[in-house]
Formats: sequence, structure tokens, C-alpha cells
Amino acid sequence: MRDVFQQELHEVQQRLVEIAELVAEAMRKGTTAFQTSDIALAEQVIEEDARIDELALTLDELSIQILARQQPVARDLRVVVSALRMSASLERMGDMAEHLAQLTRYRFPDKVIAKGLRSTFKEMGELDIKVAEKLIKMLKTQDMKFVDAIRDIDDQIDALHLSVFDKVLSEAWGGTSMDTVDATLASRYYERFSDHAISIARKVKYLSTGEWAPELSSEEA
Amino acid sequence: MRDVFQQELHEVQQRLVEIAELVAEAMRKGTTAFQTSDIALAEQVIEEDARIDELALTLDELSIQILARQQPVARDLRVVVSALRMSASLERMGDMAEHLAQLTRYRFPDKVIAKGLRSTFKEMGELDIKVAEKLIKMLKTQDMKFVDAIRDIDDQIDALHLSVFDKVLSEAWGGTSMDTVDATLASRYYERFSDHAISIARKVKYLSTGEWAPELSSEEA
Repeated sequence: MRDVFQQELHEVQQRLVEIAELVAEAMRKGTTAFQTSDIALAEQVIEEDARIDELALTLDELSIQILARQQPVARDLRVVVSALRMSASLERMGDMAEHLAQLTRYRFPDKVIAKGLRSTFKEMGELDIKVAEKLIKMLKTQDMKFVDAIRDIDDQIDALHLSVFDKVLSEAWGGTSMDTVDATLASRYYERFSDHAISIARKVKYLSTGEWAPELSSEEA
Repeated sequence: MRDVFQQELHEVQQRLVEIAELVAEAMRKGTTAFQTSDIALAEQVIEEDARIDELALTLDELSIQILARQQPVARDLRVVVSALRMSASLERMGDMAEHLAQLTRYRFPDKVIAKGLRSTFKEMGELDIKVAEKLIKMLKTQDMKFVDAIRDIDDQIDALHLSVFDKVLSEAWGGTSMDTVDATLASRYYERFSDHAISIARKVKYLSTGEWAPELSSEEA
């Protein structure tokens, strides 16, 4: 019985990694589609998001079954409770990649982002991909060093997010209203993607410390 | 022992209602501050959000303790698992009200919203307050009729959200970049507030049907 239980807990963690890998792939493709106005790739990201949603839902169902059947306590309970929260965050990360793809599709054949902001968004995209890659490693190893790494990258993304507003609100900004709307939305999607990774990082911390953390503080929201 | 347990489950539901009441109050004040550029009220909303965060965190801790000590099954387990998800959504709803207050503060003493959009945002604010009020009733009664009511209001909010984009992207829009950024952000905050209510409504549905639902589908994101 205990063996089945340990196997199920292992299964939970493996599925989290599997979803995180799909999320990383969605952000890679979503960012490329967004930067190159690749409509076929954008469509693919939108389509593939359903798979992430489905896997998150199935993981939740498994977690609830484990709670009901195995009645875990202590660290085992923490693993299952965290998985319930992490799956929701991963699902939202997938949505952010999907939103970038949707923006790309709305504006096609035009580019989404005005010239003056392309290098900023290129950097944000690269950083979000890095966040997703660290997240996978963190979920695989439960190593706290990845928590700090994600926090560092998140700080860089927040700074870029603020710089986008500085730019579109400056005198020199010559963009149209559409450019302004798109920059505002895209910047928020990139920033929220990384916030959700922080939220997951906190749950990993909870696994080792037993100290529960709020879902997202308002600073990160 | 069973009596203690039932009392604890009752406590969980009461606390959800308590947090929802604070969220409704935050949206009422946040919307008033936003519409009238009331900086003192905006500060109050920002300050009071910490209380919502704290209550959500405490509720999570209680839920996890109940899982560990009482090992609930069937509907009791669903109540506790749902509470963990609902608290996260309520916390985010509070953040949306706080974000409106923050926008108000950034732009003070200027009004946040350009003239042409004020009536739209007035309507969105009223609808979000209504959503929060229905949510409280739903949490109190577990009556499924409130789920449908929330869904109806959410549809109206989504339509207004789209109309904001139609307006700022139209030829007639004479707003500055700042007006465009603010309209984009505020509209998203209002729309997300109501999405989270939908997410909670789904968890209430789960309480009665036992069928788990995804956190938020991409349509609602």
C-alpha cells in the first residue's frame, strides 16, 4: 500500500514537470510567433494550450483522489496540496503564452510590436523562457537554488515591464493607439508569466519548510 | 470528534464569506476612488488589501490542518480542497481592486479615465460590484442559481471589455498614450475580477456535483 502511495506521489511530481515542459515550449513558440508574426506558429500555440489545460485538470483529479484514498500527512500532504496550487499556476502560464499568440493573430499580417520596443520585448521573451527552464529544473530537483534564480530573473522582467511604460508614456513615443494597447498587454503577459513562476517557487519552498505562502502578494500582481 | 470536524468545515465556509465581503468592499471603494480620483480612498484600498491577503493565508493554513487532522473524504474533502482554490481567487480579486486604486494614485490629481470612456467604466464597476455581491450569496447558500447569475454578469463585463478596445482603436479616439494605457489596464482588471468569480462559481458547482473544473479556461483568461 505504501509503495503504491509513493508511486502516486512520484507520479504527481512527474506530471508537474511534464506540464512545465509544455509551458516552456508554449512560451518559446509564443515568443517566436509574436516576434516574427508567424501566424501558423501562433495558431499552434493556441491549439496546444488545450493540452496544458487538460493535463492540469487531470493532475488535479489525481491529487484529489490521492487525498481521499491515501489520507497523506506531513510532507506527503504538502506535496499533494502544493500540486493543486502549482497546476493552477502552470495552467495560467500557458494562458499567457497563448495570449501572446492571440495578439499576434489579431494583428497579422502587421507586426504586433512597434519598432522602438522590439529589443525590449525580445529580452522579456528570452527571460521568460529562462524562467520556464529554471522552473522545470526546480520541479525536478526541489533544489532551492532555482528559487533564487527565478526571483533574480523575475526582477529583471519587472524592470523591463516598467521600462515599457516609461517608453510609451514618453514624449518621444510615436506609436499609434494600437501600438500602445499591444505594448501594454504584451508587457503584462510577460510579467505575469514570471509572477506565476514565483508563486510556484514559493510552493516548492513550502515543501521543504512546511511554511505556507500566500498565492501571490500584491507586489507581484 | 465529528462535531469538532463539522464545526471546522463550517468555519472554513464562514471565512470564505468573510473574505468575499472584504473583496466586495474593496471593489466598491476601489471603483469610487477610481471614478472620483479620491486619493485618500485609494490609499485605504491599497492598505486594506493586506488584510485580505492575510485572511486568505490563514484560511489556507486552516484548510491544510483540517486535511492533516481530519482526513476528510467525499463531500467534506471537496469543501476543503475547494476552499484552497477559492481563497486564491478571492485574494486575486482583492488585488484587482487594489490595482484600480494604484492606477488612481499614479495619475492623481488627474482623472485616470478619459472622458469618452467614463460611462463604460462606470458600468463595468457597477457590474463587478454586483458580481461580488452575488458571490457572497453563493458562498453563503451554495445555491446554484447564483452561479448562473454571475455568468450572466460576466458576459456583460466581457462585452464592455471588448467595447473599450473598439473605442481606443477607433479613428475617433483622441486620447493620449497615457489614456490608452490606463484604459487597457483598467479594463483588464475589471474583466479579470469577474473571471475569478467565475472560477469560484465552478468550485461551488464541484461541491454539489463532485466534478472538478479547470481553474480558468483560456476563454476567460
